Amino acid sequence: MNQSDIQFFFDFSSPYGYLASQKIEALAARHGRSVDWRPMLLGVVFKQTGAMPLTEVPLKGTYSKRDFLRSARFHDIEFSMPPAFPIASQAPARIVLWAKQQEPAAASRVARALYRAFFVDGLDISKPDVAAEVAGKAGFDAAAARAAIDDPAMKDALKREVEAAIAAGVFGSPFVIVDGEPFWGLDRFEQIERWLANGGF
Amino acid sequence: MNQSDIQFFFDFSSPYGYLASQKIEALAARHGRSVDWRPMLLGVVFKQTGAMPLTEVPLKGTYSKRDFLRSARFHDIEFSMPPAFPIASQAPARIVLWAKQQEPAAASRVARALYRAFFVDGLDISKPDVAAEVAGKAGFDAAAARAAIDDPAMKDALKREVEAAIAAGVFGSPFVIVDGEPFWGLDRFEQIERWLANGGF
Repeated sequence: MNQSDIQFFFDFSSPYGYLASQKIEALAARHGRSVDWRPMLLGVVFKQTGAMPLTEVPLKGTYSKRDFLRSARFHDIEFSMPPAFPIASQAPARIVLWAKQQEPAAASRVARALYRAFFVDGLDISKPDVAAEVAGKAGFDAAAARAAIDDPAMKDALKREVEAAIAAGVFGSPFVIVDGEPFWGLDRFEQIERWLANGGF
Repeated sequence: MNQSDIQFFFDFSSPYGYLASQKIEALAARHGRSVDWRPMLLGVVFKQTGAMPLTEVPLKGTYSKRDFLRSARFHDIEFSMPPAFPIASQAPARIVLWAKQQEPAAASRVARALYRAFFVDGLDISKPDVAAEVAGKAGFDAAAARAAIDDPAMKDALKREVEAAIAAGVFGSPFVIVDGEPFWGLDRFEQIERWLANGGF
């Protein structure tokens, strides 16, 4: 991790996190930056803020399901609502942390593959075997990925990551921190773009 | 009210509602549409959704205060956080409904003046005398505006408006409905723009 990396916090069960995951690398590259992929668990974060899963909120839930689809069309990103939703996201999150130990670019590659497996192919990546198989198809060692999910060191690593996210003020997904400045949501990508271009505004 | 009008729902205590209020007329005009200004009360809406005032939510509240200022700069709109916030917004909302009885353009004019009085001049427009004076300076009959705030007919009209907003699925501010399609937030103005240009997407 480099101080100038763009911190990209996300939860695998977050549709807007998925949409952002398809755009963050290109955004960073336009400004000569790298991305630090930081999986976290919204369920734990929501205990801090009293929030509930978006799709379960009265009125807002109905709207959000329409907005996921419309926003995907707007950004020209493949998307379909997964049959199992929301899901627990520990398994894919631990795989990302495991891949990251190898190299940051590996974290990005496996995270995007896992997100697409869930939001394009409709696979239930909360299941360790499914998540490991997706990693395998993305060019990783599937057996090692499967073992990482149950590895106490990876469990601890994820727990620390979630605590670090909360300490950094993260309350939703996606959440991006650029040179200390926090941006919540895919909706803020234009502001991030201007921030990176001008060093603030 | 015309079927093809853009329905613009807002609460006077909403910073993003204010920012949107400074952009909605120009957006509509670019597509030959008119705007129906529909004041509502987030406090009542939040009882349906279990939400609390944004600035009071842990983590999110701290972020939001930073984001109000940054988003105002991003959109090049004058803004300063009012000393009294959040406020009850019945008084300015009833003035808008009263002005609307005269003509739709009057509702737009007085609503924008009231919003600016709160978010630029820092006046506490929850106070009936203050709100009426703002209306007076915007070219309305201040005494009649003051009387409208206590008029049972205007109280009933606002109550019906809030019920209608909830029935239409409104859960936040600003909330825009274009030809039946709902859009929440200033963040969706680009989608609204494309929707109006293409008749959907």
